[in-house]
Amino acid sequence: MRVVEIRGSFGLDSLTVTDRPRPEAGPGQVLVKVNAVSLNYRDLLVAKGQYNPKIPLPLIPGSDGVGEIVAVGPGVDDWKVGDRVAGTFFQAWAEGELTDDRARSTLGGDRDGVFAEYVALERGGVVKVPAHLTDEQAATLPCAALTAWNALVTRGKIKAGDSVLVQGTGGVSIFALQFARMMGARVIATSKSDAKLRRVRELGASDGINYQETPKWDEAVRQLTEGRGVDHIVEVGGAGTLERSFKAVRRGGRVSLIGVLAGNAAGVNPTPVLMKGITLQGIFVGSRQMFSEMNRAVAQSGLVPVVDRVFPLEEARQAFAHMESGAHFGKIVLRL
Amino acid sequence: MRVVEIRGSFGLDSLTVTDRPRPEAGPGQVLVKVNAVSLNYRDLLVAKGQYNPKIPLPLIPGSDGVGEIVAVGPGVDDWKVGDRVAGTFFQAWAEGELTDDRARSTLGGDRDGVFAEYVALERGGVVKVPAHLTDEQAATLPCAALTAWNALVTRGKIKAGDSVLVQGTGGVSIFALQFARMMGARVIATSKSDAKLRRVRELGASDGINYQETPKWDEAVRQLTEGRGVDHIVEVGGAGTLERSFKAVRRGGRVSLIGVLAGNAAGVNPTPVLMKGITLQGIFVGSRQMFSEMNRAVAQSGLVPVVDRVFPLEEARQAFAHMESGAHFGKIVLRL
Amino acid sequence: MRVVEIRGSFGLDSLTVTDRPRPEAGPGQVLVKVNAVSLNYRDLLVAKGQYNPKIPLPLIPGSDGVGEIVAVGPGVDDWKVGDRVAGTFFQAWAEGELTDDRARSTLGGDRDGVFAEYVALERGGVVKVPAHLTDEQAATLPCAALTAWNALVTRGKIKAGDSVLVQGTGGVSIFALQFARMMGARVIATSKSDAKLRRVRELGASDGINYQETPKWDEAVRQLTEGRGVDHIVEVGGAGTLERSFKAVRRGGRVSLIGVLAGNAAGVNPTPVLMKGITLQGIFVGSRQMFSEMNRAVAQSGLVPVVDRVFPLEEARQAFAHMESGAHFGKIVLRL
Amino acid sequence: MRVVEIRGSFGLDSLTVTDRPRPEAGPGQVLVKVNAVSLNYRDLLVAKGQYNPKIPLPLIPGSDGVGEIVAVGPGVDDWKVGDRVAGTFFQAWAEGELTDDRARSTLGGDRDGVFAEYVALERGGVVKVPAHLTDEQAATLPCAALTAWNALVTRGKIKAGDSVLVQGTGGVSIFALQFARMMGARVIATSKSDAKLRRVRELGASDGINYQETPKWDEAVRQLTEGRGVDHIVEVGGAGTLERSFKAVRRGGRVSLIGVLAGNAAGVNPTPVLMKGITLQGIFVGSRQMFSEMNRAVAQSGLVPVVDRVFPLEEARQAFAHMESGAHFGKIVLRL
Repeated sequence: MRVVEIRGSFGLDSLTVTDRPRPEAGPGQVLVKVNAVSLNYRDLLVAKGQYNPKIPLPLIPGSDGVGEIVAVGPGVDDWKVGDRVAGTFFQAWAEGELTDDRARSTLGGDRDGVFAEYVALERGGVVKVPAHLTDEQAATLPCAALTAWNALVTRGKIKAGDSVLVQGTGGVSIFALQFARMMGARVIATSKSDAKLRRVRELGASDGINYQETPKWDEAVRQLTEGRGVDHIVEVGGAGTLERSFKAVRRGGRVSLIGVLAGNAAGVNPTPVLMKGITLQGIFVGSRQMFSEMNRAVAQSGLVPVVDRVFPLEEARQAFAHMESGAHFGKIVLRL
Repeated sequence: MRVVEIRGSFGLDSLTVTDRPRPEAGPGQVLVKVNAVSLNYRDLLVAKGQYNPKIPLPLIPGSDGVGEIVAVGPGVDDWKVGDRVAGTFFQAWAEGELTDDRARSTLGGDRDGVFAEYVALERGGVVKVPAHLTDEQAATLPCAALTAWNALVTRGKIKAGDSVLVQGTGGVSIFALQFARMMGARVIATSKSDAKLRRVRELGASDGINYQETPKWDEAVRQLTEGRGVDHIVEVGGAGTLERSFKAVRRGGRVSLIGVLAGNAAGVNPTPVLMKGITLQGIFVGSRQMFSEMNRAVAQSGLVPVVDRVFPLEEARQAFAHMESGAHFGKIVLRL
Repeated sequence: MRVVEIRGSFGLDSLTVTDRPRPEAGPGQVLVKVNAVSLNYRDLLVAKGQYNPKIPLPLIPGSDGVGEIVAVGPGVDDWKVGDRVAGTFFQAWAEGELTDDRARSTLGGDRDGVFAEYVALERGGVVKVPAHLTDEQAATLPCAALTAWNALVTRGKIKAGDSVLVQGTGGVSIFALQFARMMGARVIATSKSDAKLRRVRELGASDGINYQETPKWDEAVRQLTEGRGVDHIVEVGGAGTLERSFKAVRRGGRVSLIGVLAGNAAGVNPTPVLMKGITLQGIFVGSRQMFSEMNRAVAQSGLVPVVDRVFPLEEARQAFAHMESGAHFGKIVLRL
Repeated sequence: MRVVEIRGSFGLDSLTVTDRPRPEAGPGQVLVKVNAVSLNYRDLLVAKGQYNPKIPLPLIPGSDGVGEIVAVGPGVDDWKVGDRVAGTFFQAWAEGELTDDRARSTLGGDRDGVFAEYVALERGGVVKVPAHLTDEQAATLPCAALTAWNALVTRGKIKAGDSVLVQGTGGVSIFALQFARMMGARVIATSKSDAKLRRVRELGASDGINYQETPKWDEAVRQLTEGRGVDHIVEVGGAGTLERSFKAVRRGGRVSLIGVLAGNAAGVNPTPVLMKGITLQGIFVGSRQMFSEMNRAVAQSGLVPVVDRVFPLEEARQAFAHMESGAHFGKIVLRL
């Protein structure tokens, strides 16, 4: 089967489309024929060796894939051939809290990922996807959407009337915008592009702030909220951004620290956290249970993920380069 | 000033439109010129002596009024003449939990209500109302809307994708429908009228069940939810309904027991509560803080309350009779 | 191996100590040599056919057993021979919420129980027990202790300074008393025996009420709490008791409806639930995750369960009769 | 009356014991004759000008005072002469969330404090103190104890069996130790003094770590928790400590960032917050409602605060110097 591999050494140049033997569904596993996958910023970092340089190569990258079950292994009675499913980011995190053991079960990191024609997944590591979505759309859900859902809904407990700040127009931010709107919250978005700000407004944001024109965007946020600050910030920005977020969030508000983008952050002064009684919560994707709840909401609301661009698998390297450019709005997808 | 009074003895015939001296704003009070008020089922019970037959008469009924501040008493610095406000159901429940003391501060029960041209309210017993609402629309908020908000949002913590059952088309139920939709939840509604079921579908309910045609509506609810039952029920129905609700709610689900409608309930078997791990929560309107949060959500979403019919104050008795008939859909309002 | 069976028809006379072939550990199972088991009121109801008369006979009763793993089945890598464990009430409820499927996995009800020399349990249906407890003591934990823990800690979220009412001196009530004290709460206990009330005071209850001498014990509770009522009631009493509990709990308080004792309740008027904003929560034992958390607390605090009396397995019928008499204080245990 | 003043300029040398006219109870106020006050690290920073150099001088410092009401102002009906009370840190934060307005009502910062023979306090800014405590003991509660209570109980929601790390032996840390024990949690404490570690063990800590002998105390913490890390850390340490706390807390655990000690922190790398899903929560004392709940727990448990040393008011400067030395264990008190 055709797969994408990081081989030899890290770096985008090491991304290779090649052949591997097709895996089989072991005991407690299902074999999925993958139809579409999506890219996350984490995949970019993994490929460049910046996520975890100790990952053994070659590695098939990718945590987000959607396809059809074509075989079930021994002992699997809850799935059947023909089911359309997505894999879960953590193959071993079904519900409850993330433990150290569960944390070591990520696709495209701890084990080979889904940028492949076939992948064997744990029976407890797949979920049905909403019927109204194409494979390309559904392939955006496992990491970015679930991260936004966990931040705002599961742990954030936002409610109608709350205000949410999203930063930029990457996958997590656009999903955060969509989920916040689905829950009746107000959304303020930042971007360096007025064109992108127009698009976030079309998606329901009440306000957009061009952070190049308005470097002190925290002040703009406070003005838009009558001096109060927003209730919730989905922080994806890394160093510098976080301290500004502490200024932009209201007293007693919540900042969700997201994924690997913030990995560069250092030198942050946490004093505002205590003086303003802020809650800073780290969000690391989510469990299968959260994924199911999110899918229920997506199905019912008819939410359609924003797909920026679809590449064929053979152009995986271009897809990674496109993500690195930062030009995208929403999710980048590979079609198999 | 003109007022509605329950005088002499209880009974709708005792409802009289008469004159009283205009009150003044005492220390810590504001004087509100009332422009519109709305009726609640509680007002009907109060007038008929079924709510609390020990209430001393004459009494000005009514908990829900909206108007303009025309005077502020000594020591009031947070309100000014001209502010458009609604009174709070409990004049003394600003935030936190409802205590016995706070519970004895209801308008139109523990003290004279708002069915009057002027009313003196506590500085902490008024809130600003959303600007996009007319006085008639805003007058529907203090009791019915806040009860629904408290049930589903504050204590119910519903989230997008949840399923909610609302019973009938009275004020609380229609607000519950609207808030559930605002938060991304699915709504199933019951009514004995197909015409009303059409209207709840227009308001966003996914399904309507005619409980006269389908007396075992709990079975219909389970069918609509793939055998699982709904996550949340806003129970307003009284005897008989509650036991059926225990069947219609999912294992581990939540039933909000609302206001006085359920006052007739007796002879309920609570066994399903434990066997299914149900949470049954009594909801008694809400605090001013919840009211403010609800208004923020109403303002932001542009929600428009459903006003069934507007009567002039002089026809108060007809308004009460209209509520008693059960023919209404949404809220009944009096215009001053 | 020796087992207790309900055979032929329901009734205590049908309880028979007999022989069955020793089971084996199937795939994903462990085989436990049982050293001690404890009785719950549910076992009594099951035996008498009052719990679920449709249970097929013969049945080995009993949900609570402690012993040593003597064999592990294929695919089991998290347990080893020699581990001392207790079985979980629900063999399939590891964590998260109780689903319908999981609810159908109870020991001594949905499947044969633990009143046997050997039992095959799911790998996910056993937990290690605190080292400081004897087998007889540890055998009291799976149902009664976990029910009390779930009621007060997991869902009840009690904190130091809260007041808790426990009813009678059965297993759940004594554990509720012990856990409430462990969490710094005040405990008021009821009993019809002054001798038992002395013992609950020795265990840390601040007050005891003899409900035969004081049938209106709710008034006594209010007096002891300066008219306020208690924060939490662990309701095990059945019909009549629940309505009195609604009077004894404070406005906004919580009543945990426990297990099968309340199964007789009917004819309850739920009006106080709404007028006082009470939360009534059904408690059906708990998950393995809760069991582990409870064991951590038991181990750390050194809590010792109160064992009323230990019978040899051959005297199982006498043990059931002792429970039926209501003379016990704490838990009744069978030794194998 | 005699008062302590920071006069002229900041610095411990500016602390002066002098005379001022006795205040009166204004409308909505009570006049308290102060019997004992306690010092907090914040008072030290205020005096040295490091807390907020813009505070106008002269200022009476001190947030924590206990005494007797000797007069009530107009409109006060909930307090009477003779009531023994403590003032609340925030005079305007009764319950609910801390708002910007409420945050500007601190004693000994935004307004004159309690290091004085008499102080006029808001009717809503005092609470009754537990009867079993002396004035000196009760004077330790308003800031340090409430901070620990809020961190662990109100927001931390610790439960029996949880593990808590406290740092050093200052007021907040010792109260955190005592409250954690009251709630059935395990406590690990750090100090640079073996003598102090012996004392924390006497107070119930299971383990003490000398951080001078063991600079990598996070590794010791992990060893003591079987590699898992603690559930909760009460972080008072400032720069450097916080990053180590991120290592010592378990995946999904909680770090409470406390008061001004941490004010020096800078240059913190927040990456572990997201990779481990940590919740970092800023704690800024608490509301009067929390204070009342804490007092209920203190009264019921009979907890006795640890008073390090009592100085007469005239030796206020020595008391500040004693705090600055760091030699204390528990709270430093001034007697009037």
